[in-house]
Amino acid sequence: MTTARTTEHLPFGEKRDPRFFGRDILSVSQFDRSDLDTIFAVAHEMRGMVERIGTFDLLKGKVLTNLFYEPSTRTSSSFVAAIERLGGSVIQINNVTYSSVSKGESLPDTIKTLESYSDAIVIRHPEKGSAAEAAAAAAKPVINAGDGPGEHPTQALLDAFTILEEMGTLDGLTVTMLGDLKYGRTVHSLAKLLTLFDVKINYVSPEILKMPAELVAEVGAAGITQLETPDLDAVLPNTDILYVTRIQKERFENVDEYDQVKDSYVITAETMTRAKEQMAVLHPLPRVGEIAREVDDDPRAAYFRQMEYGMYVRMALLALVLGRA
Amino acid sequence: MTTARTTEHLPFGEKRDPRFFGRDILSVSQFDRSDLDTIFAVAHEMRGMVERIGTFDLLKGKVLTNLFYEPSTRTSSSFVAAIERLGGSVIQINNVTYSSVSKGESLPDTIKTLESYSDAIVIRHPEKGSAAEAAAAAAKPVINAGDGPGEHPTQALLDAFTILEEMGTLDGLTVTMLGDLKYGRTVHSLAKLLTLFDVKINYVSPEILKMPAELVAEVGAAGITQLETPDLDAVLPNTDILYVTRIQKERFENVDEYDQVKDSYVITAETMTRAKEQMAVLHPLPRVGEIAREVDDDPRAAYFRQMEYGMYVRMALLALVLGRA
Amino acid sequence: MTTARTTEHLPFGEKRDPRFFGRDILSVSQFDRSDLDTIFAVAHEMRGMVERIGTFDLLKGKVLTNLFYEPSTRTSSSFVAAIERLGGSVIQINNVTYSSVSKGESLPDTIKTLESYSDAIVIRHPEKGSAAEAAAAAAKPVINAGDGPGEHPTQALLDAFTILEEMGTLDGLTVTMLGDLKYGRTVHSLAKLLTLFDVKINYVSPEILKMPAELVAEVGAAGITQLETPDLDAVLPNTDILYVTRIQKERFENVDEYDQVKDSYVITAETMTRAKEQMAVLHPLPRVGEIAREVDDDPRAAYFRQMEYGMYVRMALLALVLGRA
Repeated sequence: MTTARTTEHLPFGEKRDPRFFGRDILSVSQFDRSDLDTIFAVAHEMRGMVERIGTFDLLKGKVLTNLFYEPSTRTSSSFVAAIERLGGSVIQINNVTYSSVSKGESLPDTIKTLESYSDAIVIRHPEKGSAAEAAAAAAKPVINAGDGPGEHPTQALLDAFTILEEMGTLDGLTVTMLGDLKYGRTVHSLAKLLTLFDVKINYVSPEILKMPAELVAEVGAAGITQLETPDLDAVLPNTDILYVTRIQKERFENVDEYDQVKDSYVITAETMTRAKEQMAVLHPLPRVGEIAREVDDDPRAAYFRQMEYGMYVRMALLALVLGRA
Repeated sequence: MTTARTTEHLPFGEKRDPRFFGRDILSVSQFDRSDLDTIFAVAHEMRGMVERIGTFDLLKGKVLTNLFYEPSTRTSSSFVAAIERLGGSVIQINNVTYSSVSKGESLPDTIKTLESYSDAIVIRHPEKGSAAEAAAAAAKPVINAGDGPGEHPTQALLDAFTILEEMGTLDGLTVTMLGDLKYGRTVHSLAKLLTLFDVKINYVSPEILKMPAELVAEVGAAGITQLETPDLDAVLPNTDILYVTRIQKERFENVDEYDQVKDSYVITAETMTRAKEQMAVLHPLPRVGEIAREVDDDPRAAYFRQMEYGMYVRMALLALVLGRA
Repeated sequence: MTTARTTEHLPFGEKRDPRFFGRDILSVSQFDRSDLDTIFAVAHEMRGMVERIGTFDLLKGKVLTNLFYEPSTRTSSSFVAAIERLGGSVIQINNVTYSSVSKGESLPDTIKTLESYSDAIVIRHPEKGSAAEAAAAAAKPVINAGDGPGEHPTQALLDAFTILEEMGTLDGLTVTMLGDLKYGRTVHSLAKLLTLFDVKINYVSPEILKMPAELVAEVGAAGITQLETPDLDAVLPNTDILYVTRIQKERFENVDEYDQVKDSYVITAETMTRAKEQMAVLHPLPRVGEIAREVDDDPRAAYFRQMEYGMYVRMALLALVLGRA
């Protein structure tokens, strides 16, 4: 991470990094290591600016359309905060399915209309590929905020940025992913993104919720050491990052099977006594019991800071695609 | 009311009154007379500023989350206008129950997420105690915008501020509360708040909608002279403030009883001929017939100005808790 | 169009054109030719400013209430973008019918409350006459953004402004309206507005969707040459503006009749080969098949630019009624 970029990129002028300016953010796989270094360096600067002065006018006069075809208050609010803290403003569109813009109108037409009002578009849509379709229609930058079973690249970026900010580096770490690794979109994207760094990954899950074999193969092909186990204790003492996800009851065919495993993957204050002193617990939120509330006061509990880091990553992406970082 | 505060508190710098800075606004009972003097003095300054220049950048760069678990367009819009007229911006969250932020997530988790994006949180929630629960979870200021049958402190404050602005003082006045005094949350809070001033209070209602005895006892214990009567005419000629509330048909066991009383509590132009020349009619709105529209043009009809005063009170509270007044 | 106005009206000071300042925008019929010249001149300046600098603080400090009783994302977003690009801010109110502001409250009361927070109100309401009722209640400017079967004046103004920007003039043109001319509110308003200019109008539609006879009479009485035909090819070669509208299946009594006509009014790349080289295709959007997507790349396809022009017209109207243009 080149913090030397700081003076080059900020403050307050036109910067047009051709890797980002005017581009779309659709998938984690569009980035190489150098791209991530840039994004994270800018996000780190954003953190510093927000901590010092709260808000600044880097994107004053820019209008962002926040187009949500399905509700996601967390992600939507994060983008609103991001553009507002940069001095820009937002056109918020919720529940598009009930609105006239969708009355039989094609997604490209909706996008072409909205880009005539705004400088960039964030889109959340239940269908895979919809963000790419929107980007193809738009001349202005489109940011994918989740396209159903497809990608949610800003989530993966914020997860990686959280690791960086908490640990000071992404290299040399052991990352343990816990819970539902079969259906969890966030762990899939994060595992792919981590192949750009020098990490070891442990997968801890019940047998029926294991990481998909194709993904393990893909990550392995990139040279990453991986270990699969149902036993958290086997890997916890060496874990630098514990990434917890929710296990949903509905995934199980019978309730007994669910009841059997659910408790073994609940992180408690007692669990934390067996973890390293320097480590961080992450969770994409919302949580529903898989991390006990008593853990919140542990300095290693990073999941609420993770939300804040998400805002900095989105500030960085907006500034980069709009040519101001 | 010390208008000398004006120069001390405004304009445009950091002010950190320890009674307000970083604090939550949860209940009217948290304030003493001196707190109210401060709030009303700042609100009065806000009024002057808005009347002269409309908007100013006292809270530029501040982001307010406006979190409404149940709809309340009036209150929500008032807070939006308040933060925008101070140069800040807003994350508006409506209908949280339908959104992902609430999918089984606890209120403290939602609050901790949202405070990572913003500088203060306004919350409206149907459950009593929810605002206090939110405040306990948040490090940043939380303002209660109504927690069901609990409190709605900014309403009581705006009611009292309306009296002050309309009459020039809160002391020495006779306040008459009219209508449904049993279930009306606004009159309960206002009565409590008025115990901090030198007032007389009349309660005019049908027998079955009388002020709760505990509350009358509490107000009396504070040394306030009170009078209960079903007859408006008995007290109208000496009334300085007539606070009208709606009588809801559903409160009555039989319709005849309702039909009998409803008309006796409708304020008309004719009613106003029997009122003082210098007095003010207040109503928390919405009204549905209990004040005839012909009264709107009477200069003593203060209920729409009351809405405007509400914005000034909310501007004052935001400036105070964020350390700028 | 007097571009000499430019220096007189902008930039950045109080201008109080008595034809607009503090006035309501309720109907196209309130404007004469000179009014339109002013609106379009200011809208043209807005276009130039946005193209050069994106956003500017002409209405900094102004708060607009955007009150939508029925969804219209396109129109609502356009007004949001308009006020934000002028440095102002917005109170957005959607789905009022579900909100407390409407709980039995009369429209005038809602308006009086909202104007106490804001500097102007945009209203969209399903009932004819509602915008006028709102305007009568409000002391501040009210802009009609569609009152059901009534008027939608900003749509007609943006249609006319699109013609002006695309062709350089509104005079001497032949305008062909195509599709459902019986129920289409936009073509009715546009035809009325065009009587202020020196144009010829062709109406191309199936027999059962012809322009209402009263409207043809009214437009004719203003001295406009009109021609009705079911055959697009008869008029296309001489058409300067082709205004396409959607034919809705539900308008037809039997499906055969619908299937018969629908294809003859679909604009394709092939259709465009028979059109003038200098002409423009307009559509109020959303379209559902009546213009093939292959036409989008034709430089004469002006319907997405039309959306953008809509934002400039709304910026102009806001600046004019708020005394800044």
